[in-house]
Amino acid sequence: MNIPDLDTPALIVNLDLLAANIRALQAYLDEHGIANRPHIKTHKIPALAQMQMDAGAAGITCQKLGEAEVMADAGLRDILIPYNLLGEGKLARLTALAARTTLSVTADSGVIVRGYSEAMARAGLVLDVLVECDTGGQRCGVQSPAQAAELARLIQRAPGLRFGGLMTYPNTEYLDDFVRATRTLLAGEGIPIERVSGGGTKVMRQAHTHRELTEHRAGMYIFGDRHLMLAGATPLETVSLRVLATVVSRPTATRGILDCGSKTLSSDLLSLTGYGYLCEYPEAGIFALSEEHAHVDFSACGRAPEIGERVTVLPNHVCPAVNLAERVYGLRGAAVETVWDVAARGKAG
Amino acid sequence: MNIPDLDTPALIVNLDLLAANIRALQAYLDEHGIANRPHIKTHKIPALAQMQMDAGAAGITCQKLGEAEVMADAGLRDILIPYNLLGEGKLARLTALAARTTLSVTADSGVIVRGYSEAMARAGLVLDVLVECDTGGQRCGVQSPAQAAELARLIQRAPGLRFGGLMTYPNTEYLDDFVRATRTLLAGEGIPIERVSGGGTKVMRQAHTHRELTEHRAGMYIFGDRHLMLAGATPLETVSLRVLATVVSRPTATRGILDCGSKTLSSDLLSLTGYGYLCEYPEAGIFALSEEHAHVDFSACGRAPEIGERVTVLPNHVCPAVNLAERVYGLRGAAVETVWDVAARGKAG
Repeated sequence: MNIPDLDTPALIVNLDLLAANIRALQAYLDEHGIANRPHIKTHKIPALAQMQMDAGAAGITCQKLGEAEVMADAGLRDILIPYNLLGEGKLARLTALAARTTLSVTADSGVIVRGYSEAMARAGLVLDVLVECDTGGQRCGVQSPAQAAELARLIQRAPGLRFGGLMTYPNTEYLDDFVRATRTLLAGEGIPIERVSGGGTKVMRQAHTHRELTEHRAGMYIFGDRHLMLAGATPLETVSLRVLATVVSRPTATRGILDCGSKTLSSDLLSLTGYGYLCEYPEAGIFALSEEHAHVDFSACGRAPEIGERVTVLPNHVCPAVNLAERVYGLRGAAVETVWDVAARGKAG
Repeated sequence: MNIPDLDTPALIVNLDLLAANIRALQAYLDEHGIANRPHIKTHKIPALAQMQMDAGAAGITCQKLGEAEVMADAGLRDILIPYNLLGEGKLARLTALAARTTLSVTADSGVIVRGYSEAMARAGLVLDVLVECDTGGQRCGVQSPAQAAELARLIQRAPGLRFGGLMTYPNTEYLDDFVRATRTLLAGEGIPIERVSGGGTKVMRQAHTHRELTEHRAGMYIFGDRHLMLAGATPLETVSLRVLATVVSRPTATRGILDCGSKTLSSDLLSLTGYGYLCEYPEAGIFALSEEHAHVDFSACGRAPEIGERVTVLPNHVCPAVNLAERVYGLRGAAVETVWDVAARGKAG
């Protein structure tokens, strides 16, 4: 099977670029002695997680229990879930997962810690829990080193738990100071901070500037996308994933419609203008998406494509685009060498 | 199973409101002699399509071949696909589908018409093709009555095809004039415009004001969402679908994090501010989404919820939210009466 045999829209991956991206980040992190724990939320494909492990990753990161279950089923063995998990159903699944794989999780409040502790103590297991720290990202996370130290003590005392270190996302300029201040507060209490887990593809090449960082979680680096390309993190020539699409309508001389809408690209803007980068018509603007259509303005281009012409698009944000796809096609040149099911897509819990 | 037994995030549907919404639109369109052809892209669930048919719908609308195949497999028998379909793979599937169900499609160019004609003539089938008209929506569609008439003639002459009428989305103030002008151009050529198919939930209650409309395609009316609530089309007390979510973090006194991110709600803004309506905290603002988190500002609320508290959210746009879900829970009061797989979710082609 070759590219022209693929029905559109389809997510296509250049296998050589993919492998090079995996190698490059691993080499960089190896050089600086930082453990690589790639985030599989970007691809949700066990075979790609295995490629990352084979290249030297210390383990993987999953954002949902459902993703971690799929990865554990496929044989991945060291998993971090950096998410506050609570509720009877999730804690039962977490316990089952902890019993069969090396697992760590995070918490940013006593409520979450107590839930983990009750579940693990009942099962006779010991779970590593990292404290999620807000170092400027304004997402989840404790707000200060004092809160981080307090939660670390709670974890260390809690039956069935072990304090596993600190976690943040993304790496910011406050990361090192936050970690040092927390360590100072815990000094003399026998609670070392063994692991400091940071993350982000946009900031991956600055990981070595954070002296306290012991591991890095990047997800999008294996594919890249328009947002990362424009930010300079994944230059166009390294972006391994594109959406293959067909021009299905040309209502006017300058307007065209592709068969990749928000159900393919996602409607993520990430503060950009437009919804994707049209590789063959870089001056074109994808100015709107409906669910099954991308609306393109070709007025700045020398020519506009004919109906039936195939084009390739970099989505603004690759993670939700992959989550929306049933499968991803791996290409060697123009030949389809591999077809992966996106096995961990769309997991709610 | 009751609401508290559901893991979050989960899409929950009030079955009484759902049935009432189905009945109400059917009664309105019946009263005005307009055929009801609900768009199943909103729910993607065969059982709901069957409920719409049982209530009196003339047929259903699917936006993708893959959706139509799922619906035909489930026994739905009169399907419109208002989409330009092209390419060998899709035309082969279209032919197989046309051979086993009552099918109609649309086109807005000669390229699309010729593809349909070759496929149908080869198979010895006759397919109804409607001309898609841009009556102001600026999506796909021919731009003028002259182009519509020209394409109607092409369809009528083409082996294996039958001119099936005109289609537009959404209904606009230009709809009737567009249809009349096209009819005038075709007068005396023996090409009647038997079917005029319009659509839209936001404009559904004005369908009767379009004298030329013979059928209406609405999708979101069975559920409603924040966008339609704010537009006055689906008042809050009629909205049947909500996202059940849990507060998983309270980083600050006024900020909270729910476990429903863009992977649950979708990042569709539809020109609104914020990403959803938090039913229990109507003054709260969902000011950002990450993939697995909704970021909420509770500063305008009298109180903010505790970690672990469950809330319900109206997504901005219900269609992509359902597309992202593996299943939907149908509730009678607080009891889960039905669990539907979203069987036609995520179809690329």
